Amino acid sequence: MAEFLLSLAAEKQLNINDEQFSALLDSQDSLAHLRKEFHIPIIETLPDVDANLVNVKDECVYMCGNSLGLCPKITSVMMNEELNKWAKRGVIGHFDDSARPWVAIGDFPLESMAKVVGAHPSEVAVMNSLTVNVHLMMVPFYTPTETRYKILIEDKAFPSDHYAVESQIRFHGRDPDDALVLLKPRAGENTLRTEDILEVIEKEGDSIALVMLSGVQYYTGQLFDIPTITKAAKAKGCSVGWDLAHAVGNAVLELHEWNVDFACWCSYKYLNSGPGSIAGIFVHSSHDVNTRNRFAGWWGHEKSTRFTMDNKFISNQGAAGYQLSNPSVFATVPLIASLSVFDKTSMRELREKSLKLTGYLELLLRQEIVTQDGAADFTIITPVTPRDRGCQLSLRFNCKVKPVFAELEKRGVVADMREPDVIRVAPAPLYNNFSDVRRFVRHLKDSLAAAAATKH
Amino acid sequence: MAEFLLSLAAEKQLNINDEQFSALLDSQDSLAHLRKEFHIPIIETLPDVDANLVNVKDECVYMCGNSLGLCPKITSVMMNEELNKWAKRGVIGHFDDSARPWVAIGDFPLESMAKVVGAHPSEVAVMNSLTVNVHLMMVPFYTPTETRYKILIEDKAFPSDHYAVESQIRFHGRDPDDALVLLKPRAGENTLRTEDILEVIEKEGDSIALVMLSGVQYYTGQLFDIPTITKAAKAKGCSVGWDLAHAVGNAVLELHEWNVDFACWCSYKYLNSGPGSIAGIFVHSSHDVNTRNRFAGWWGHEKSTRFTMDNKFISNQGAAGYQLSNPSVFATVPLIASLSVFDKTSMRELREKSLKLTGYLELLLRQEIVTQDGAADFTIITPVTPRDRGCQLSLRFNCKVKPVFAELEKRGVVADMREPDVIRVAPAPLYNNFSDVRRFVRHLKDSLAAAAATKH
Ligand SMILES: Cc1ncc(COP(=O)(O)O)c(C=O)c1O
Ligand SMILES: Cc1ncc(COP(=O)(O)O)c(C=O)c1O
Repeated sequence: MAEFLLSLAAEKQLNINDEQFSALLDSQDSLAHLRKEFHIPIIETLPDVDANLVNVKDECVYMCGNSLGLCPKITSVMMNEELNKWAKRGVIGHFDDSARPWVAIGDFPLESMAKVVGAHPSEVAVMNSLTVNVHLMMVPFYTPTETRYKILIEDKAFPSDHYAVESQIRFHGRDPDDALVLLKPRAGENTLRTEDILEVIEKEGDSIALVMLSGVQYYTGQLFDIPTITKAAKAKGCSVGWDLAHAVGNAVLELHEWNVDFACWCSYKYLNSGPGSIAGIFVHSSHDVNTRNRFAGWWGHEKSTRFTMDNKFISNQGAAGYQLSNPSVFATVPLIASLSVFDKTSMRELREKSLKLTGYLELLLRQEIVTQDGAADFTIITPVTPRDRGCQLSLRFNCKVKPVFAELEKRGVVADMREPDVIRVAPAPLYNNFSDVRRFVRHLKDSLAAAAATKH
Repeated sequence: MAEFLLSLAAEKQLNINDEQFSALLDSQDSLAHLRKEFHIPIIETLPDVDANLVNVKDECVYMCGNSLGLCPKITSVMMNEELNKWAKRGVIGHFDDSARPWVAIGDFPLESMAKVVGAHPSEVAVMNSLTVNVHLMMVPFYTPTETRYKILIEDKAFPSDHYAVESQIRFHGRDPDDALVLLKPRAGENTLRTEDILEVIEKEGDSIALVMLSGVQYYTGQLFDIPTITKAAKAKGCSVGWDLAHAVGNAVLELHEWNVDFACWCSYKYLNSGPGSIAGIFVHSSHDVNTRNRFAGWWGHEKSTRFTMDNKFISNQGAAGYQLSNPSVFATVPLIASLSVFDKTSMRELREKSLKLTGYLELLLRQEIVTQDGAADFTIITPVTPRDRGCQLSLRFNCKVKPVFAELEKRGVVADMREPDVIRVAPAPLYNNFSDVRRFVRHLKDSLAAAAATKH
């Protein structure tokens, strides 16, 4: 990517940090029009902005899709349609002839959702929230025996996954100190090597009941080799589940083809469904919903007889069988809304743009900042190989990070700081453009200088 | 209640089915102003209405709060505030200085919610949906042993509860045929007698791990004697949980005082939070969150260190410790909105009105219809004693119920039919008035006549 960008700049006699250069990249972006589908916050509506440093009427530099994606314009339209329906028709909204009768509200996102994760629609359900689903999936897929009872996760898994897994181990009467196998990077390295993961699976696989890793690591931004790890773990007889919170809508996924057992994800990051909105699950079609124990509820009941109320449970086939409750309409409609934007493109197109966008970010960071005074203020802990990462770059600072972050905020940059020393920067290909990336790097450069100056 | 109403009518020289009489009752209703807090659907916006039978510009007769409560006017205001915040500030909404920073969104309903169920705020959490919470509560509270492994529920429990309990029994390697104890009414009776429930507990209590009944039965409208049953079951060493879907916002509850172990409820019925919105749990303060196994997630982590990301789980105290995921903002805000209406009154005031409202309904039904041609078209299967019921009356028809229901719909009545032969009628004291009740009975009378006429 660097080569392509540098030669394009040379050809046009521009520097890669020129406004004209990012504008050129934007003009060549076949997905650029999708930005207009979103509300981009204006700097003046953000807190802690310094009007002397930035034009507060400009759009902010939003690099935080890894935490909460931006709001599609269609969302409030659809939400108000449902609010209106409730106000005007009450319970009739469940079964009425409107665009989205509530009784089926959870079905409307399935086709688009399945496309995004590379699944058959019947392998996908939208329900609950992420950690809830991690637990509900572990009920059928973590069934420890005397000899096979361990769970393999990352040493620095997202806290909620760590707590979920620990509590499941305790629930089954085991001790996490014994049953939890933690994958650590090699000394001096930030991310896990696939070969090391495979070695652990090869060595300890016979005692591992479940491998549950994240598709994209929340802290480092590492994209795991899902097909290779899945295949190796399944060959050893382990169940394999993936937490795709940071991978969905970010990386190209082929969950069905990769033969993943189950996967869970939230929808409020790259899927842009709003804070805490409804989550998704994938269960591979090779699993018959009736052959494993799982927790059951009426929403998992076969649809045509769900309301017969005879208390004889006949399960929906596929992922739909794992549903428990009637889903929240107001947590689901924003997902329907945001997936309608995904329907205007494809994950392959988005990924293609993403590689360029993040490649441009990396190149600018290296040119503009890493070489400043000959020394870097930070290292990029995300893998350098595009294949091994999503859109996010995680910058680990060797100066104090809080003052830098505060300076970024003054300039209308929305990124995300993680204790102790990391700023995560995530240009989302659905709405971020190359100018955002250029502006981010300029603001970071200025912020580093300003933070350094106030230190003295 | 009948005596009071009849003597008032006599005193005013009115018949109880006179428009002036229901208007008089409305004028004496100190909670009448609360109706204005809600959108009452207009008949013309409902489907299948016959403009020849009814003035379609009138408000409908909405008797369906047992299924989906009406929409408070404040809800769309608050929802649009949150949609706007997301559009204007993105992820900043989690921690900003607005009225409802999302990071704490689940805390805002707690005080009002606790009042409604008679609990300390720390005994209550809002999270997930009802059946999900039933499962999450059974993880700590259904821990079968060799000798104590049974679950006592109603024979006609709500299907989702039945499926939940069955699947939990199977999960623990037991057979529901052995481990499920079902409470049936006596031959020829429709509802359960407390004495019979107590007898089963006395006889089988030593083998019962969990008693889980509904506060108000969804089909019959029976209100169970929660304190008496709870006390008896706990004396026998059983855990006691209540499904309060139909009781919350309907009956006066004193969960703390009654020493209930846990309770779950949805919020879309009498709490008016909208379809599938966030549910509630109660866990008695006598239970230390750390002494039982449960499923854990980061949202149950002690708040001040939740984001330290060191993967050491320290639980919130109380019900908050059972939270798993960051809650859906758009499923929670409607609950905050609707509870703000409850804050304008109290459950005792609502119950007082409710007794009058449902008493008036019963009296009118008996006077206007049950005596028609000397024979009744239906029986009221709900207990006759006000103490033993909430606001709902369940009418079991001895004619075909579908044509009657269709006739009601033509007249702009929204009630709720349950296969095979029941119509549930639920005047909700928060927004229904005495005129609604009178109009309902007139429409039912006309509907029965019309249905009978077309039969010939
Ligand atoms: C008594 C009772 N229990 C459980 C449920 C299931 O609710 P949910 O779909 O919210 O889990 C309902 C729904 O109407 C109910 O009435
Ligand atoms: C990787 C990962 N897993 C799990 C979670 C927990 O999500 P929730 O609170 O929706 O359960 C998150 C939230 O950010 C996450 O990033």
